[in-house]
Amino acid sequence: MISEDYKARVINLYKQSQIVLTDAEINSIDFADFGLNNIEEEALNIILYVNNDRYCAKEMVLLPNQTCPEHLHPDLENYEGKQETFRCRWGKVYLYTDEPTDVTEHQVSPPEKSKQYYTAKKEIVLTAGDQYTIDPRIKHWFKAGPEGAVISEFSSPSFDEYDVFTDPNIVREVRDR
Amino acid sequence: MISEDYKARVINLYKQSQIVLTDAEINSIDFADFGLNNIEEEALNIILYVNNDRYCAKEMVLLPNQTCPEHLHPDLENYEGKQETFRCRWGKVYLYTDEPTDVTEHQVSPPEKSKQYYTAKKEIVLTAGDQYTIDPRIKHWFKAGPEGAVISEFSSPSFDEYDVFTDPNIVREVRDR
Repeated sequence: MISEDYKARVINLYKQSQIVLTDAEINSIDFADFGLNNIEEEALNIILYVNNDRYCAKEMVLLPNQTCPEHLHPDLENYEGKQETFRCRWGKVYLYTDEPTDVTEHQVSPPEKSKQYYTAKKEIVLTAGDQYTIDPRIKHWFKAGPEGAVISEFSSPSFDEYDVFTDPNIVREVRDR
Repeated sequence: MISEDYKARVINLYKQSQIVLTDAEINSIDFADFGLNNIEEEALNIILYVNNDRYCAKEMVLLPNQTCPEHLHPDLENYEGKQETFRCRWGKVYLYTDEPTDVTEHQVSPPEKSKQYYTAKKEIVLTAGDQYTIDPRIKHWFKAGPEGAVISEFSSPSFDEYDVFTDPNIVREVRDR
């Protein structure tokens, strides 16, 4: 059960970004906790705008210092793995990808409880107006700054239920749409 | 030549919507006038966020009562015609598509000067938070309300130079990117 307080904080962050949403969209928010029972630290809150067989767009919220756990989008039988562009709309997000990097000092840390399941090391810092594209099959995780973050995602079609998470304890239940 | 006054009004409308853009994006705006020498009435102002071989996203502005001329996205050799979702972010947009409709009264009219090149009759009115998906090969045009409009477009890949316009006078010069 997701608390009403948690839901209100997520909705408030969408509102703070000035992004206009319909009531139906607010009622459709997927408060994904990945079955970790650690929603304050590890979660992702998602409004799905469109997901057809050609493209997908979402508006996502991370509460302050909240982290979306590390995962990748694998190739599927009839689709190459999902490619996605994150565009920060409000706040700040620290994105880590499994790509070559010389930088070893990071500005934020993964959640202490499950830090062994965070392996991607290339750091990309996005503030409002910045964006970054993540190629298929690349492990990535991302964490909001101290005020939280609102992030638009533009991508190839989404099949969230097939995402491959580094943490074997994760169960990704995708909300019925 | 696009006047500095025109550019300033477009940029101001982006700002009014509270969408955060980088300076590079503002400097990249495609002020498309379609070669019609009628920019106050017929134009579209576009910021391209991403256009790769899998998906595309843009942020578009129409000034008050400005119209994007009727066109369709044809099938190309290796791509089915572009499919696109318009999401109104600010203001109001009247969208007309060449789809079946029983409605014959429209809330707005096409530009008088070239009204014979506006044939699509199904009316969809979008205010902030509303969206609509246009299928490939469907003729469409759209006009802003009296305050203008800011519209996000999520789509399959864009090949703007191959768009097919109803008005044979149109020349679509796509800005180098």
